Amino acid sequence: MKGADIKRLIKPEIKRLRPYVAEDTPCSVKLDANESPYGFEAYISSMKEIKTNRYPDPEAKELRKVVAKRWGVSSENILHGNGSDELIHYIVTVFGGPVLYPVPTFSMYGIISRAMGERTIEVPLTDEFDLDLPEILLTIKRERPRLIFLSSPNNPTGNCFSSESIMKIIENSGSVVVLDEAYQPFSSKKGFIPLLRDYRNLLIMRTLSKIGLASLRIGFLIGSPDIIAAINKVRLPFNINSYSQAIAVRILKEKGLIERSIKNIISERERLYSAMSSIKGIRPYPSEANFILFRVKEADRVHKALLRKGILIRNMDGQVKGCLRVTVGNERENSLFLDALDNIVKQGQREALQ
Amino acid sequence: MKGADIKRLIKPEIKRLRPYVAEDTPCSVKLDANESPYGFEAYISSMKEIKTNRYPDPEAKELRKVVAKRWGVSSENILHGNGSDELIHYIVTVFGGPVLYPVPTFSMYGIISRAMGERTIEVPLTDEFDLDLPEILLTIKRERPRLIFLSSPNNPTGNCFSSESIMKIIENSGSVVVLDEAYQPFSSKKGFIPLLRDYRNLLIMRTLSKIGLASLRIGFLIGSPDIIAAINKVRLPFNINSYSQAIAVRILKEKGLIERSIKNIISERERLYSAMSSIKGIRPYPSEANFILFRVKEADRVHKALLRKGILIRNMDGQVKGCLRVTVGNERENSLFLDALDNIVKQGQREALQ
Repeated sequence: MKGADIKRLIKPEIKRLRPYVAEDTPCSVKLDANESPYGFEAYISSMKEIKTNRYPDPEAKELRKVVAKRWGVSSENILHGNGSDELIHYIVTVFGGPVLYPVPTFSMYGIISRAMGERTIEVPLTDEFDLDLPEILLTIKRERPRLIFLSSPNNPTGNCFSSESIMKIIENSGSVVVLDEAYQPFSSKKGFIPLLRDYRNLLIMRTLSKIGLASLRIGFLIGSPDIIAAINKVRLPFNINSYSQAIAVRILKEKGLIERSIKNIISERERLYSAMSSIKGIRPYPSEANFILFRVKEADRVHKALLRKGILIRNMDGQVKGCLRVTVGNERENSLFLDALDNIVKQGQREALQ
Repeated sequence: MKGADIKRLIKPEIKRLRPYVAEDTPCSVKLDANESPYGFEAYISSMKEIKTNRYPDPEAKELRKVVAKRWGVSSENILHGNGSDELIHYIVTVFGGPVLYPVPTFSMYGIISRAMGERTIEVPLTDEFDLDLPEILLTIKRERPRLIFLSSPNNPTGNCFSSESIMKIIENSGSVVVLDEAYQPFSSKKGFIPLLRDYRNLLIMRTLSKIGLASLRIGFLIGSPDIIAAINKVRLPFNINSYSQAIAVRILKEKGLIERSIKNIISERERLYSAMSSIKGIRPYPSEANFILFRVKEADRVHKALLRKGILIRNMDGQVKGCLRVTVGNERENSLFLDALDNIVKQGQREALQ
């Protein structure tokens, strides 16, 4: 073996890094990744009009126009990303750290920031999973973060943070505040897009991944045009391929299609929540998202027992002690999950009595 | 307007940055972006089997298997990227700068490195567009770059660098050497993939963008498994969408399809080169790629005059004084280009005589 010792050349912060592991567990009912249960593939006609040999539209003009209209903003307010992940990456590139976020939350804020060598500051949520405002304001004063990520509704807890606390952070932090509204479509609370007019340090993230288009990898950042233009400078020119652009435009233009699927998910969430509440030994937390976090004795055992029945949900024990997270599926999937959960919990109780 | 002054929070190196501008000029003959003239959309059947609501395979297992077989390596040697751009980004993230590359070359090595705050070192090519080996070795000794990018065949000059010089740099630099073989499929010289066995500091980039699949945004990095695993740690988990993965697999499995298109491009390149050589006032440079760089008096005027006839090629005057770059198109496109070029150059000569 000749040439330089390449391992010596890897940055120390990268050597320390643990990669995000996307699970790939075989299952018949997949309720682990906060995907929508409703696919729109039936609406995709021939893709033959797209030339395979030509680069995509670098500016994703039609796509940005369609979503801008949806959100009542203009195209200049919108930056398109290969999923929200890529946008987080760009935001950290442009503003740098320290990067502050509450925990537990979406793991990629921390993973991406650390991969880029930035310091992260994690402030635990209150016992009610809300922002610990006094502690956050104190930490901001001490640490002067350049960037703050807030996911509301929050993953994996499912609740919206208090709007007043979010406002206080935007007004008093002196930082860029990125509000990740990935799960906003499922929430009964108002989103923050209308506030962009008043707060230039506010950026909002949205995604198509939770509302039926996870296959496409499309996320958006919404903010003031000059800030969007600054972040656009680090965007890789052709970051969304031709097929994802075309399919997204096609589906988004189908009137009411996504809205109907969201309505179904919300109604199934309510059914799921109420049924889970009636299972003895389970404590589901109220959700404004498309998943439900719940507390259960022997979380590991329940998680594994569900998987043996072909039902995959997410084990959150590492982030929220004793908790699992189930994505809201379609009616059949939710019923299968409820039956299985009920059986598994009851069996555990019987065994404990013996 | 309330909240923090967000502009103050943008890193200075980002403020200085100029974005990559992807041209979007209306034209009837598009020969500016080194795309293949041959699209494979006819081979794409229904995409209805892909579920729009499910995340893509994060590991792109089938795709990596197919290309690994093609290149006689194993899947563990291969990292998949949303275009080579994303892979460059990851490489710079993992190893950092200073980043050395010869100029003129593909502009993204410099753009991405600077966007990430890394210092770039540019070493001019010789007058024959080959690597200036003594100067490069001297610069390496003085500046100790962690990363070296070499594109061979080189864009925009079209030639392969001397294999001996490339070998000397791999053996003596103490750096990570990334050999970008985007245009290797069009070259008569042997590629460097077989050398990966012997040199762990060598990484090779390949792309599907030049061989008929630019729409998909798929690039690959090939290297030793442990180095690929280290770089994989910073990869965003779902970086290639479901449709691009499926279409790439479909087309790559179609026996001989891409190979035939490459053969056509090479044969058209030879015809184009020979016809251009016979136009008085034009000096085309020999090419091992799918484009031809040529010198012409009044490059700006010729570029604009071609565009008035609906033919878009790339003005390289800023990088190689007095030069334009034409992508090899199909027979009809190349003939239209040759006729137009001949007319425009002759008219310039007539006007100069008046």
